[in-house]
Amino acid sequence: MNKMKEIVLSDYRIVLDDSLTALRDFLQQHTYSKLIVLVDENTHRDCLPLLQEVQDNLEVILTPSGEVNKNIDTCELIWQEMMRGNADRKALCINLGGGVLGDMGGFAASCYKRGIDFINIPTTLLSQVDSSIGGKLGIDFKYGKNLIGLFRNPKLVLISSRFFQTLPQRQYINGWAEIFKHALIQDAAQWERYRNLDILQCDINEIVYQSLHIKKAVVEEDPFEKGLRKILNFGHTIGHAIEAYSLEHEQDSLLHGEAIAIGMICEAYLSVKKCGLPQVALDDIVQVLLTHFPKHDITGFDAEEMLQMMSLDKKNEGSTILAALLSAIGNCVYDVPLSSAEIRESIAYYNSL
Amino acid sequence: MNKMKEIVLSDYRIVLDDSLTALRDFLQQHTYSKLIVLVDENTHRDCLPLLQEVQDNLEVILTPSGEVNKNIDTCELIWQEMMRGNADRKALCINLGGGVLGDMGGFAASCYKRGIDFINIPTTLLSQVDSSIGGKLGIDFKYGKNLIGLFRNPKLVLISSRFFQTLPQRQYINGWAEIFKHALIQDAAQWERYRNLDILQCDINEIVYQSLHIKKAVVEEDPFEKGLRKILNFGHTIGHAIEAYSLEHEQDSLLHGEAIAIGMICEAYLSVKKCGLPQVALDDIVQVLLTHFPKHDITGFDAEEMLQMMSLDKKNEGSTILAALLSAIGNCVYDVPLSSAEIRESIAYYNSL
Repeated sequence: MNKMKEIVLSDYRIVLDDSLTALRDFLQQHTYSKLIVLVDENTHRDCLPLLQEVQDNLEVILTPSGEVNKNIDTCELIWQEMMRGNADRKALCINLGGGVLGDMGGFAASCYKRGIDFINIPTTLLSQVDSSIGGKLGIDFKYGKNLIGLFRNPKLVLISSRFFQTLPQRQYINGWAEIFKHALIQDAAQWERYRNLDILQCDINEIVYQSLHIKKAVVEEDPFEKGLRKILNFGHTIGHAIEAYSLEHEQDSLLHGEAIAIGMICEAYLSVKKCGLPQVALDDIVQVLLTHFPKHDITGFDAEEMLQMMSLDKKNEGSTILAALLSAIGNCVYDVPLSSAEIRESIAYYNSL
Repeated sequence: MNKMKEIVLSDYRIVLDDSLTALRDFLQQHTYSKLIVLVDENTHRDCLPLLQEVQDNLEVILTPSGEVNKNIDTCELIWQEMMRGNADRKALCINLGGGVLGDMGGFAASCYKRGIDFINIPTTLLSQVDSSIGGKLGIDFKYGKNLIGLFRNPKLVLISSRFFQTLPQRQYINGWAEIFKHALIQDAAQWERYRNLDILQCDINEIVYQSLHIKKAVVEEDPFEKGLRKILNFGHTIGHAIEAYSLEHEQDSLLHGEAIAIGMICEAYLSVKKCGLPQVALDDIVQVLLTHFPKHDITGFDAEEMLQMMSLDKKNEGSTILAALLSAIGNCVYDVPLSSAEIRESIAYYNSL
């Protein structure tokens, strides 16, 4: 990508810009007492040097990487380091990392001294397409993912594919689960373009740009997830439980996108049964997703435990498990109640593929 | 108080109503999946029964009382109990308690599943005049008070003097520190009325009502404490440090209002030196405050440690200690830098009284 693209949202901008000069421009227009950069071991090594090329005077706070560390203990570590560095309310927090770091860093910044400004620089494809828009911040807590958190927007999101060039291919493909999801729930034409694409040989920044436009439209219509926004959870009701189960029980656990791909297959199956998705569409979805996300053996996963997790999902009302399902490719309905039997059946379907 | 009074703010109301029927009215107009009441041991015993007279189906979460428990551990306990009770995003959290419980309960509610609605029912005079308006939520963290928190408003505040009738007189007088403060910073006529009042024999609900109008005007002009709102911190720069020191080192530690009364005397002294407050006004303030808040021996307090605490105050910029000082009774200026020497001198002044 050579030319700067941007997406303008209600109170901030997303700038897609490999040169990263947008950061320097932003900092020239704003006055901060201190620039704090949150990194993990990986972004400290691979991404921070790129940032330091355009901006000096960055005070670095190193956090432990991974979903297992997206918790209140790590927030306390961040707050402690901010206090030690004497960061006041006019400090800026720059979150340089994937989804875990962005969600947690945004939450920590929003609660520090009742809130300081933050910028997100998502360094994985997944976080670029998934968490650049929507203002969802948070950490995991006993019983489930993102149970503690807030809605708040960053002051700026900076996207560059330079950050994930050092990442393993598996991480890159991981991000595609959300790109496919955006297409499936809102844009049949986009799905049509992507289903046969060689995803390793494409203009990924252009695709991120297109994908974010879908999310933007949905989130702007329903910023606090009272209704429409729930369609973004397609694949996530079952996928989140699979992800959590894998994280808990598997040595080499599934990545978020990999689990969501399984969740999308299960929920597409239920979409046929409950919402009129044509069988041929299901077959198409399964074929595309299995191409990029090869079958993972989940026959040993304990359905009871996963159902228990699903029943604790934030999107539920009371104890009824609600999901977003497809009525067609490019069309999604939400708040569809799922029974335990239906969920078990959909997992059996995935296992039968 | 027999007739219902109310104060209307931008997005919620404060109802002063001994009958508590305003709660029932509110609940009839809103649909919640669950009514959670946060209490501590004291409000569980003394205040919850009054609430249960007008509303049943309350699910009670008991938290440990006191400033020492206003921390992330207690929040985790609250979140855990909410999860155990399967509270969804449409649950309502009713904070029944003093300032500690209101600040912490509001924070916990605002972060639970990215935010559920909450109502505050402040049960002490202090919390009624101090935290009914302003949306400041939070908990204490290593290094200082309220370091972790948010700005968010409750859906309703319900005030009744019935709640504090079981409280010791010391707690009642504690609340008067903030009533005096509101008068001193904004309303000389109010100060004139209160300075000779028999505060044990007065229409306290009417006084709370008047006092809240001052806070309302200030907060509405500057909701996020960018400027004017800082005048509400009169007495708090030094007072907070005295409170924290006492809490840490004294067996029978100072209450918030008692510490703020000392802070107001110190800061009124500095107001004469730095902001043109007439000496006669200082003498008047000292006389009134010492009448209600008898001299406390702080000669053993370590000034170094308190200065360290003050330097960590959220209101500072960088390491300069900033305070709000009086230019006259009823008139306050903010962001006045204080040197360590000046602060020491003001404490020596208090000790000399």
